[in-house]
Amino acid sequence: MPIENAPFSQAEYDRRIAATRRAMEAAGIDVLFVTDPSNQAWLTGYDGWSFYVHQGVILGLEGAPVWWGRMMDMFGGRRTCWMDAADVIGYGDHFVQSTVYHPMQDLGEQLRARGYGAARIGVEMENYYYSAKAHQVLKEALPGATLIDATALVNWQRLVKSDEEIGFIRKAARISEHIVRTAIDKARPGLRKNDLVADIMHAGIAGVGDDWGDYPAIVPLTPSGLDATAAHLTWNGDPMREGEATFFELSGCYRRYHAPLCRTVFLGKPTDDMRRAETAQIEGIAAGLAAARAGNRTADIAQAVLDVLTKHGISREGRMGYPIGLSYPPDWGERTASIRTEDDTILQPGMTFHFMPALWMDTWGLETTETILIREDGPAEALCDVPRKLFVKD
Amino acid sequence: MPIENAPFSQAEYDRRIAATRRAMEAAGIDVLFVTDPSNQAWLTGYDGWSFYVHQGVILGLEGAPVWWGRMMDMFGGRRTCWMDAADVIGYGDHFVQSTVYHPMQDLGEQLRARGYGAARIGVEMENYYYSAKAHQVLKEALPGATLIDATALVNWQRLVKSDEEIGFIRKAARISEHIVRTAIDKARPGLRKNDLVADIMHAGIAGVGDDWGDYPAIVPLTPSGLDATAAHLTWNGDPMREGEATFFELSGCYRRYHAPLCRTVFLGKPTDDMRRAETAQIEGIAAGLAAARAGNRTADIAQAVLDVLTKHGISREGRMGYPIGLSYPPDWGERTASIRTEDDTILQPGMTFHFMPALWMDTWGLETTETILIREDGPAEALCDVPRKLFVKD
Repeated sequence: MPIENAPFSQAEYDRRIAATRRAMEAAGIDVLFVTDPSNQAWLTGYDGWSFYVHQGVILGLEGAPVWWGRMMDMFGGRRTCWMDAADVIGYGDHFVQSTVYHPMQDLGEQLRARGYGAARIGVEMENYYYSAKAHQVLKEALPGATLIDATALVNWQRLVKSDEEIGFIRKAARISEHIVRTAIDKARPGLRKNDLVADIMHAGIAGVGDDWGDYPAIVPLTPSGLDATAAHLTWNGDPMREGEATFFELSGCYRRYHAPLCRTVFLGKPTDDMRRAETAQIEGIAAGLAAARAGNRTADIAQAVLDVLTKHGISREGRMGYPIGLSYPPDWGERTASIRTEDDTILQPGMTFHFMPALWMDTWGLETTETILIREDGPAEALCDVPRKLFVKD
Repeated sequence: MPIENAPFSQAEYDRRIAATRRAMEAAGIDVLFVTDPSNQAWLTGYDGWSFYVHQGVILGLEGAPVWWGRMMDMFGGRRTCWMDAADVIGYGDHFVQSTVYHPMQDLGEQLRARGYGAARIGVEMENYYYSAKAHQVLKEALPGATLIDATALVNWQRLVKSDEEIGFIRKAARISEHIVRTAIDKARPGLRKNDLVADIMHAGIAGVGDDWGDYPAIVPLTPSGLDATAAHLTWNGDPMREGEATFFELSGCYRRYHAPLCRTVFLGKPTDDMRRAETAQIEGIAAGLAAARAGNRTADIAQAVLDVLTKHGISREGRMGYPIGLSYPPDWGERTASIRTEDDTILQPGMTFHFMPALWMDTWGLETTETILIREDGPAEALCDVPRKLFVKD
């Protein structure tokens, strides 16, 4: 496929590959087998809903990467990867979900044929798409090779975004605003939650102007009332009710890039304790943004929020955010740094995080979050523009 | 959570657990650790988009299953699982996506505390949600235990559906019909593909009558023209064009149960070779349905189709279907039997398959598929009612 059809420039892909190779050399890795679909797309442009079968990118220290997958997906690879057709290869369908054959047998052959039979091969041990069985079969297929844990090696290279990538995330942010505003506008007592989610989904895929919407890596999380005390419930067909808070944690997606955003809507008159929590949360977010500056650590953001919450008498545990950008299901986080007190990642300009000091309490949940960009100077920029408050529809 | 809030009756969950325990005993397994989200939901009712962190179900040979996951998802577990609150347990957030701790260290403790420190423990080696790293850490955490590959042990118990489950799949089928009809009605030259997908998504989540729509385990696959020669491309913002075929492979979802369906729309006048392929495909589906009867094998369905295609001068490789029902991303298939010539699974009443003899050719794709139910007698029933043809909009 010609590079002009790929989402990014050749220079951008070259930059990514060079950074990855530096990390490979530092780790003593001769060749990397990349299974994370986000990492595959980041390196090659590959885009398709085919990650439910084994596939990946073979990246040596020289030459173009090779995309490897199921034969029928090779055709999708040749329409979405920037490499030559010869560097997009497929395995036979008899390997697919078979109790007899395993695709890693074919991968072993491919690696051996490329001279990696006795190489130091990096594999992503902690990844949804690299199963315990895949590792076992690959090890057996390449008895002379050494398999090295290269979990998140590529993900760490994705942490600081290029200007091209930030442009995509800004487009996703416009879509996120559009979706959240749709949710706030339409929420009302008696409306079935699934009917509201149908409108939310429609807004996200329609997108904004020429910027068409892609599917987000997580479906909208839209729990109400007691369900909102749990973080990850989706929706059902129950009507929305007076006296309940509903949070809308969702993301626009522009060509696989995300900008997660959450706002909470209360139907009726919120309780005083919810109002106090709102005040604390908004003050906490402001403090977090002020701490989110180049040279500070991720832990500084978390501590700034905790200091404010403590002052307001609210105790909170757990993580408050993670890097975001290019992603595929089941997670829109990048799984590297975390915004939490025990994480010491130094903030650099171009990093983007979903900053989410959500409060899941005993009888309600209040979630207000921002996608933030670390800048050269000053506090982080919140990329979405939706008022930071509890939306009350009385 | 009281059982009356769960999707199924206690008798249904009891049936499932008894069947699973028989398979465990046959495999010499003392306790099963179930990571497949579909298997977790099938056994306990657990439902949430939290499978991007480690979680699972601990099922011994006696007593209730235990749902184990991240602390914040324990609250979701207590709102969706049928077991007592004490049987839904959580681990601390410091285990989440950490470079220092791994949740399998906590699971090891939980299993040891329950007397399984030296047990024969079944694990789903080939599953998206049981990584190579998870296996390594669990093995280290339980040096006295024996880890046994129990891949698809639960999935095979799901193959024959209960009447309650078939009722859910029939509801999903009504939603699938509604979505496909929406796609056929709205497709026209000049319409941006993402705008059509927005309407498709809306139809699927709105559902049909009281049967609200849940998210399908795979997003709609809607490629046009040359993109339709690849099986798993999603969509973009390009306008639909005169002279191109677009296939719509998608599924309605009712409380996590699916009924995948595909129809192809041609804008303009299809070529003669596409018309010939249409004839062959429809005749092949009829032959496949006739072969899909209790007592026959999955291979018989595939062979019946191939015989027809060969007669029409079309060669086709690869699998033509798989069991469907309860599912979570990234796959709506059950990953057990396959409709292919080398698969000898005996068909039984109550089995449901996505039967998909799709044709992906050099310059176009033609996909017409059905969700089918194996009956006591006679040919399989196609659960969706949409005319089986190439839809031409001239």
